[in-house]
Amino acid sequence: MDQLMVKNIVKKYRRTTVLNNISFNLEPAKIYGLLGRNGAGKTTLLNIISNRIFPTSGEVQIGGESINDNDELLNKIFLMSEANLYPREMKIAQTFDLADVAYGNFDYDLADRLLTAFELSGNAKVTNLSTGQRTASKLIVALAVNAEYVLLDEPILGLDANHRELFYKELVKSYQEKPRTFVLSTHLIEEIQQLVEHVLILDKHQIIINDDLDDLLARAHAISGPAKLVDEYTAGLKVLKSESMGNIKTSYVFDHLNDERPIPDQVKLDHYDLQHLFIYLTDGGAY
Amino acid sequence: MDQLMVKNIVKKYRRTTVLNNISFNLEPAKIYGLLGRNGAGKTTLLNIISNRIFPTSGEVQIGGESINDNDELLNKIFLMSEANLYPREMKIAQTFDLADVAYGNFDYDLADRLLTAFELSGNAKVTNLSTGQRTASKLIVALAVNAEYVLLDEPILGLDANHRELFYKELVKSYQEKPRTFVLSTHLIEEIQQLVEHVLILDKHQIIINDDLDDLLARAHAISGPAKLVDEYTAGLKVLKSESMGNIKTSYVFDHLNDERPIPDQVKLDHYDLQHLFIYLTDGGAY
Repeated sequence: MDQLMVKNIVKKYRRTTVLNNISFNLEPAKIYGLLGRNGAGKTTLLNIISNRIFPTSGEVQIGGESINDNDELLNKIFLMSEANLYPREMKIAQTFDLADVAYGNFDYDLADRLLTAFELSGNAKVTNLSTGQRTASKLIVALAVNAEYVLLDEPILGLDANHRELFYKELVKSYQEKPRTFVLSTHLIEEIQQLVEHVLILDKHQIIINDDLDDLLARAHAISGPAKLVDEYTAGLKVLKSESMGNIKTSYVFDHLNDERPIPDQVKLDHYDLQHLFIYLTDGGAY
Repeated sequence: MDQLMVKNIVKKYRRTTVLNNISFNLEPAKIYGLLGRNGAGKTTLLNIISNRIFPTSGEVQIGGESINDNDELLNKIFLMSEANLYPREMKIAQTFDLADVAYGNFDYDLADRLLTAFELSGNAKVTNLSTGQRTASKLIVALAVNAEYVLLDEPILGLDANHRELFYKELVKSYQEKPRTFVLSTHLIEEIQQLVEHVLILDKHQIIINDDLDDLLARAHAISGPAKLVDEYTAGLKVLKSESMGNIKTSYVFDHLNDERPIPDQVKLDHYDLQHLFIYLTDGGAY
């Protein structure tokens, strides 16, 4: 399988720049988290990668060739989105057939099993489904479709906790059986932390983070104790946010710690999670 | 402040029973989580408590009196819901005035501060807002309205992680300054675990859990080790779910442990969280 390369993508609507020179690669067989605040441009970016809309400039390539007008390459990319693209009278089972016609080799066995697991009937009309049911029916297509790059825009919209857990488990299972690339774009960062290997953060129309999850978390340290000692210890380190209560201060560092610097007894070192790292990075632009 | 009592509420639509004899109390100045799967009847229940729809039988009381047709009592209850009840041309600031007229003493200072925090303008028309912005504008009303019982149905719909964190912080702050009762009905159980004191779980149209969070979590034990030892240790305890990998078994217990029973060296005791407790309780009806 070939790498997918997003190269210098710019998207402008009149005078508004939605994407400002975005470049990154998607490796084959990897699970990505695409994170960003509301309005950051995630949906626009996913629509460009899947050729639903055109960039103002820049290009998406697979194996060095532009996907533009290349049906063979476009057939490697599938986007599950919030938009409802199906005719109103279409039944869930017919959306499976559409994916089979477009991408070939649709996994009907998996789709049937997932219909049961999500408590859906293939005969139900898409237009009559609740938000959670509609999301589930789209997830089934996304997991059973034969594509090397599967992009999921808000894949858990309206799902209750049980169905979210079911989706996460089925995603991992499907990925292990047939490794391919998934891009998960969601606001539920806490929940996908267990799934993603690599994180892309889009903020203010640019990519500010493009790192493996492990590398990110290895730099996320919460350091708390008497304010003076915390300040001394964190001097020279990148501090994203600090909170004080009385004389006790907690500083959220995003940096490798200097192992040679001794840690005072009264200072406590802890880790913090991806969701908080995201919030601190995108709140007011400390980064 | 008086207790709110939900007494033997039944709600039927034709032959479908949505709520099957629901009874519980809401204490003054307490934060509740109302949890349930999609379709469990949470929204119907909240609509009945706030007198937007009528039960088939049963009654909601405050201080022993029925709220039905009692304006004084109804003015103690506010429901923030997904439904859009405002006229299309209404501006956010006008929704504040409506809440002031209906409930009196609207906290305009708080509302102004929250408008800035959520990056909204009071002049924006409700109909032009994105889902996340509309949710934020409703949350501002819910936090600034003068009501003793504030019911929040899906309060975080469409909010990004930053705005969810902002809401949780402002809720706690507002609650500390002016203690009153909040009921949070949401699918993001992991996130509200830090906020709620008491948990109500609605499953298959009945209340199956009505307990303080601490009491629930004190009974949630994950017990793992060699299958034989785990089975011996958990004999007689309520086990909600078990998973096995090779000879290693993990059983999710929902029970107080018998402290007199010795724990074998190879068996590991852990806790699990509210979201998983909810999933195990409502998946297939182990309870």
